[in-house]
Amino acid sequence: GRKVLIVYAHQEPKSLNGSLKRVAVEELSKQGCSVTVSDLYAMQFEPRATRNDIVGCLHNSEEFNYGVETWEAYKRGGLSSDVIEEQKKVQEADLLIFQFPLYWFSMPAIMKGWIDRVLVQGFAYEFPNCYDSGFLKNKLALFSFTTGGTEETYAKGGISGDIRYLLWPMQHGIMHFCGVKVLAPHICFAPEYVSEEKRKEMLIAWAQRLKTLWKEEPINCSPEWYFK
Amino acid sequence: GRKVLIVYAHQEPKSLNGSLKRVAVEELSKQGCSVTVSDLYAMQFEPRATRNDIVGCLHNSEEFNYGVETWEAYKRGGLSSDVIEEQKKVQEADLLIFQFPLYWFSMPAIMKGWIDRVLVQGFAYEFPNCYDSGFLKNKLALFSFTTGGTEETYAKGGISGDIRYLLWPMQHGIMHFCGVKVLAPHICFAPEYVSEEKRKEMLIAWAQRLKTLWKEEPINCSPEWYFK
Repeated sequence: GRKVLIVYAHQEPKSLNGSLKRVAVEELSKQGCSVTVSDLYAMQFEPRATRNDIVGCLHNSEEFNYGVETWEAYKRGGLSSDVIEEQKKVQEADLLIFQFPLYWFSMPAIMKGWIDRVLVQGFAYEFPNCYDSGFLKNKLALFSFTTGGTEETYAKGGISGDIRYLLWPMQHGIMHFCGVKVLAPHICFAPEYVSEEKRKEMLIAWAQRLKTLWKEEPINCSPEWYFK
Repeated sequence: GRKVLIVYAHQEPKSLNGSLKRVAVEELSKQGCSVTVSDLYAMQFEPRATRNDIVGCLHNSEEFNYGVETWEAYKRGGLSSDVIEEQKKVQEADLLIFQFPLYWFSMPAIMKGWIDRVLVQGFAYEFPNCYDSGFLKNKLALFSFTTGGTEETYAKGGISGDIRYLLWPMQHGIMHFCGVKVLAPHICFAPEYVSEEKRKEMLIAWAQRLKTLWKEEPINCSPEWYFK
């Protein structure tokens, strides 16, 4: 059975994000996948990248460099236990699903903190091993999120620009950088402005997509996909 | 005298980011500006958007909606004191400078948390008052950051793509959305891979730019600037 990690960032289990997460757990479990959820708010996950992420002495205590210190700490097994825990989940996963509400054209800070702290050099990449030779190659990722704005505002001529523009830092800058192949995003536009009926259809559509997810081809994660 | 708020996110005062921040404080103060710094790591600024941001009762305690609750709390003066404090600084500022090391094609989580929690609806925008009619119009913003990758990797044909691609969510999706006009970014590429001499030149170039900053015209913050 395949292994899936859902990194989930919503404060409210009753929200559409909460339901989308639940639908994914149910549908993927039904398929025989083993599903793990990192429920970041429930875990009170620490988003700040600080000296506390390194257990014991620093490599250079004169001038703190987070990138260097976490790289060194990773190599000697000296990262803080919450980070090591998340790295184990990533290591075992075949697919990472990020489930969140879009905050300011990006992920909520608590999820950005998960990225900043978990995907350290040595674990997720190590120069020059990045992009297609990143250490997380052979894994898949999928960004599943809700928006405040409608689909029209995120169209090519819309006031917020093509939604693909804002996917570049997340899909290319984070996932592709680590070697992860990216499946098409799953976007629920403006659920707060539609009927309960329409929101139920959104959940059904997500469950439906998940049924054939493993047959999907990753996107071509290059500028053409984003900016045409 | 003009008022400047520097939102600063680096753990180490001795870092280049620390020096860039110091240079800005010195140069702008010399000009007669009044400069305030929000040193996010030193403040241990909370990046997580949670129920704790609302003092007292919730508008809807059955189903927590962060956007709705903070909007309502803003209107009745019921946001948490650390958020109110930052909003006051923003309100008074003519110019916001964001000083940070680029983490994963974006700002560090601690700074994203400042954005998520401080720029709430009612304060920074209120539909349909966004973009050119956002509530923070008549203010300027400038993103000043360092990168891990070299300038070549962030060129148009480079492996990380044009650096402007990753500025879209920050400059357009955050600042322009609130009505803020955006000055050209200030980017120090790969300071860790250059000589001490070259790093000093970077500081001098920043000080030099600041001398004539108030004469600069904002960029045209539309898709053409980013994606040509």
